[in-house]
Parts: sequence; C-alpha cells; structure tokens
Amino acid sequence: MKTDQSFPLSGERFTAVYHLVCQPHEAQAYARDICVEQTIEFPEALITDQMIRRHIIGQVMSLTMIDTARFKAVISYPVEAAGRELTQLLNVLFGNISIKPGIRLVDVELPESLANQYRGPRFGQAGLRELLGVHDRPLLFTAIKPMGLSPRALADLAYRLALGGIHLIKDDHGLTDQRFCPFDERVRRCAEAVDRASRETGNRCLYLPNVTAPAGEMMRRARFARDAGAGGLLCCPGLTGFDAMRLLADDDELALPILSHPAFQGTFCVHSDSGLAHGVLFGLFNRLAGADGTIFPSWGGRFAFTQDECSDLVQGATRPMHRLRPIFPVPGGGMRLERIAELREFYGQDCILLIGGDLHVQGTDLVESCRWFVEQAG
Amino acid sequence: MKTDQSFPLSGERFTAVYHLVCQPHEAQAYARDICVEQTIEFPEALITDQMIRRHIIGQVMSLTMIDTARFKAVISYPVEAAGRELTQLLNVLFGNISIKPGIRLVDVELPESLANQYRGPRFGQAGLRELLGVHDRPLLFTAIKPMGLSPRALADLAYRLALGGIHLIKDDHGLTDQRFCPFDERVRRCAEAVDRASRETGNRCLYLPNVTAPAGEMMRRARFARDAGAGGLLCCPGLTGFDAMRLLADDDELALPILSHPAFQGTFCVHSDSGLAHGVLFGLFNRLAGADGTIFPSWGGRFAFTQDECSDLVQGATRPMHRLRPIFPVPGGGMRLERIAELREFYGQDCILLIGGDLHVQGTDLVESCRWFVEQAG
Repeated sequence: MKTDQSFPLSGERFTAVYHLVCQPHEAQAYARDICVEQTIEFPEALITDQMIRRHIIGQVMSLTMIDTARFKAVISYPVEAAGRELTQLLNVLFGNISIKPGIRLVDVELPESLANQYRGPRFGQAGLRELLGVHDRPLLFTAIKPMGLSPRALADLAYRLALGGIHLIKDDHGLTDQRFCPFDERVRRCAEAVDRASRETGNRCLYLPNVTAPAGEMMRRARFARDAGAGGLLCCPGLTGFDAMRLLADDDELALPILSHPAFQGTFCVHSDSGLAHGVLFGLFNRLAGADGTIFPSWGGRFAFTQDECSDLVQGATRPMHRLRPIFPVPGGGMRLERIAELREFYGQDCILLIGGDLHVQGTDLVESCRWFVEQAG
Repeated sequence: MKTDQSFPLSGERFTAVYHLVCQPHEAQAYARDICVEQTIEFPEALITDQMIRRHIIGQVMSLTMIDTARFKAVISYPVEAAGRELTQLLNVLFGNISIKPGIRLVDVELPESLANQYRGPRFGQAGLRELLGVHDRPLLFTAIKPMGLSPRALADLAYRLALGGIHLIKDDHGLTDQRFCPFDERVRRCAEAVDRASRETGNRCLYLPNVTAPAGEMMRRARFARDAGAGGLLCCPGLTGFDAMRLLADDDELALPILSHPAFQGTFCVHSDSGLAHGVLFGLFNRLAGADGTIFPSWGGRFAFTQDECSDLVQGATRPMHRLRPIFPVPGGGMRLERIAELREFYGQDCILLIGGDLHVQGTDLVESCRWFVEQAG
C-alpha cells in the first residue's frame, strides 16, 4: 500500500505518557500496540509507505519500569494526526485504547504549535479575579438547589447567598430546563436577584446558570443567560462533549467565564489502572476546552479522591502550558465550613472553595452562614 | 426550605438498575445515597417540602443481594427530572455517581412517555436493510485506512472494496480533517468512487464518512457529505457527546443512517464494578441518540470483551424499547475472515460484520478478498 503523493509533515510531535499494567516481558509489545492502535490501526507489516512508517505511526520514546507489574511509556505522535480539532486530539491520545484495560493516560505534552491552536481559558485565574475584584484570598462559591424548587424560590436563595458575600453562585448541575423549573424563567429571576443583592452590598457576585443542554440548544441558552445578566456559565463537558464547552469559551460575544462540572466523567478516573489521570481529565482537558475553573470532589468529602489525586489535578489545572492560562481548582463535593482552614492549607489561596449544602445546615439564617464562610476563608 | 408554588408531576417514573459493590450492612445506605446524589444533592433532613421528598428524590424500588459483596438496586426517578433532553437523562442516570467507585449502571427502563421524547434510530435494522436491498444475511462492512494515505489513495481503496461487494464502507475513525487528508476532498473522492463501483456492479454500497468534528463544524461536514453523495455517517459519540449524534440523526434534511463508533468510551465498561454495562452504553444510549448500528470490539479480537458482555450489548441494541427501533450490533475490532462462521453463529444474521485490516492480509487482490468475504458470510 502506497500513497500516490507525498505530503509535508512538520516533524513536530506531541507526547502522551501512559501507565501500563503488564508483566515485564509484555511491556514493549503493549507500548508498540498503542503506537499502532492510535494511528494507523492497520497491520504494520503491510505498510510499505515510508512516510507513514516513519512519521504517522506512534513512536515509543521511553519505556520505564515503575514496579514489576506497571510500566511508564512515553509515546509521541505527529501533530498533524491531531488535526486542528479537540475531538481528534482526544481521539489520538485515548480513543481506541480506552477500550483496552490496563492503560492509563497520565500526562500530555503539546508543542507550542499544537497548544496554540487552542485559545483555552478566556479568563483563567487572573481574569476571574479581575472580574470579581477579589485578590489575595480564595474565591467563594455555592450552588442553588435542591431540584424541585421553583425559579422564584431559587432566586430568593440566590439573593440571600449573594447578600451574604459569596462571589460565585451556580445552578445545581441537576437544574436544566425541567417543567417545574424552566431555564429561561430561572435564569432571568436569579440573575436579577443576584444583581439586586450586589447593588445592595457593593460586592460583585456572579450568577452562573447551568447551560448543559442538547447540542442544538446550548448556545441559545448561553446567549439568553448573558442577555439576562448572568455573570458566567456552568457546563458539564462529560455530558455535552468537551468541544461543546470550547465553543462557548471561544465565543467573543458571550465572553463569559466558564466553570466545568465533572458529572458523568468520574468513571474515567476511579480506577487507577485505566482511564485518565485526574490532572489530565480535570486539568489539561478542561483548559484545552476553555474552562476557567474545574470543579471536583475534594478528598475528605462525599467522594473518594485522595490527596495525591487532588494534587495531580491542581498540577494539571495550573502548570505552564504555553499560552493556556492556569485555571482555578474548585474543590467541592461535600465540603464543610469546619474544613475551610484545612482546605486553605492544602490548596493555598488560588482556589475557589465550593460549599453547598453545609451552608444550609449551619443554622436557620442563610445570610449569616455565608458571612461566616466569608470570614473563615478570608 | 419550601417551594412557593406547587408544580404538577405526572407521577410517572423511570428506573435505573445499579450493581453496587459493598458489604451487606452498607447496601441500604449506598442505594439511598444514589437516590439523593442523583436528584436533590442536598442534606435530605433539611428538605421540608413534601412534594420534593415524595416525588423528586429517587426511590429504592428493590435491593437484592447478588453475592456477599455485590447488590442489585432498582431505583426510580420522576420523568420530569430528566427534562426533555438526553444530556439531562444521562445526568440523572449516572452524573455524579460516576465519580463514586463501586456503582455500575446495568439497565434502564423508560416509560413510553419518556422514551417517546426521543425519535431514536431513523432507519434501524429494517430501514438499513431496505436502503441496501439486502435481506436474510449479515451486512458486510469495512473501513478505508490507514491514516496517512491521501484522499486519492483512499478513494481508490473504497472503489475496490465496493467492487468486491462490501455493503458499507466507512472512513477509519482516525480520519477527520487532517492536512494530509482534508475532509471535503476525501469525501468527494470516496463518494464518487463508491458510486462508480456501485453502478458497475449493480449492488448498492454506502460510503460513511467520519463526521466526528468540533461542535460548530459537525453539521456542516454532515451536510457536505450528504451533498457529495455519502450514503451514511460515522460518528464517535464518546468524543462529540451523545447528543451531537442525536442532532444529526434527527435532522430531516440529512436523513442518513448513522453508525456509532466506541472511541474514547471504553473506560466506561472495562471495569465490571463501575461505569456502564455494555448493553446500556453501546445499546440503549446509542439508540436514544439515534444510531442505526453500534460498532464494538467483539470477543476474540484485539480487545477484551467477553461473550457475555457482547450478548448484553446485543440485548441493549435490539430489545423492545417502545418506538425506538432495534439497531444493528456491529462486531469488529480485529475480526478475521476465518472467524466468519463463528461470528454468524454467535450473532445470527441480524448483524453487520466489520472486517478491516484482515481483508488486506489475505492476498494481494483486495477485490478478490472482498468477494471471499461476501461468499463466506452469505
């Protein structure tokens, strides 16, 4: 099989780091298998075209034993294989091999030419701080819920939360466009309520409606939200696809900060011998897809992430990555007010603290609970 | 916390079946936890609104021991929680609990009112057979590859594959819009080549370009493909989101059959104690999202699905589901010509047999290899 024309390849490559669960005598074959599966997906022996053999097929750059049952393989791919689209970059990194047990993608390095095809986070940490006028302390975040409340009841909640000094108020990610809580009405009422509270307190507060929605409807909701005065957007890329979030982030007319929610993505990281490392999934991929903050269930809450996994996530969210801005880690998932000091110590000040239900548990006065949150986290 | 208005709920509920990995004394609490996590995500004790307590929160319909470390929980949710959107239905079924290890979604039952909000597969098994005029035998399917070939070389391959009698020819899922193989040129050339071969043989053959693409670009590619004469579409919902595929399927102007490819979805099923069962992921979800066939790596190939997992997948793809048509299971992933008899016996005649690389291994004459495939599978 030969190509009938030569095509120019830049020679530039991007690299993926995989952990392989296998025996020492299998490691080399496992790594080679990834090289083929993720590119030509074709019997290698039948490829006579030298350009394809030398440049298209993945290359094992290094293979290192971690322990007797686990290896680290660094594999490079030509930047051209990933095209100019996030869907295809994800496909080359982990498309078919997601179906093979015992392979975990733990890191990705993109050369500048490839990284810069993505605009990435519009605001990032610095831009979001600028928007809110809050520096030198963690940002404070909560959600309006539970599902089942009317738009009017949720707007009342949002008003009191904003009055208490919270910086960012999101829809619960389970609120979409249900008959008992239509999107348009909820967003209009909540944006108005948050704006009213902000004017009363003099503190800026952003309301982030959940725009996770059907493919043909998402941009309409985002534009409606902006027009109604929403200060940002909440999106679940596990439900919409990462690239749908990128489309929102890249839209110059919207120009709103986006917080990414991990719904439906957990399976990718819950088993340490397959899927995606926390830093890749919640950090790098969210940055490529334009999120300004990445919500995740922190260690010590209702979920099971470890401290090491949370640290890896923070690395992915913040480490240098060409022009892609560092974004906020947003530890949540059952955080309690009594843990604020501990969270501040672990995450530092450059994070967004997300506390939901616990603000309501503290007492009957929600505004007072929020003020206590502000004080504790200051 | 009270709602300020009553809202009408139909009382209709849909059910999800989960397997829980836990100890007997934990099972009840695990199941209750899912009920709360997937709906109100709020401390249950603080909910005073009786409508929310009685109707919004998930309900454990049954809890059965499978063995001392595994339970089966059937949980129901109000249809209104899922709204009228696939993104939210997936969110209620498995959004946050995807992040908790030890929970696997193994089945879903939707009442007619909810299932019928989805148009589902436009063609399904019967419609696709009608399009091709092929009854009473498996349909035959292959891919043009490897990545790195030019549009001209791929069109030449497509021509010979069609000449050999293959019914469906897809782009390899790694072909998108790379510089060395631009989408528009490839699709134009391949559609023309397949059409030319069809006219020569008198047998219908459909070319299915891969329209997996950025969110704002996918519909353009699909329309371009239809205008260029493509007979169907290939889509990777793991990369685009399920709902992006549904948007293609529901488009009356496109009106093309869609085959779904499992790239990037494997992690959901590779560990049997978390994620999604094969029948749910590759069967039910693909049908809700409008695929007419579901490509998967069959047992006995390059991947590791078991016979039981493949049977579960076939069940999900074909079992009665209100008006949602049964779709074709498409076993692939390293299938070889020598296994056709075995595959026919296992999958019966209502499947699409996908053989890629092995057609090229058989000998130098690709057309002859295809004819042999046609003969063996007849």
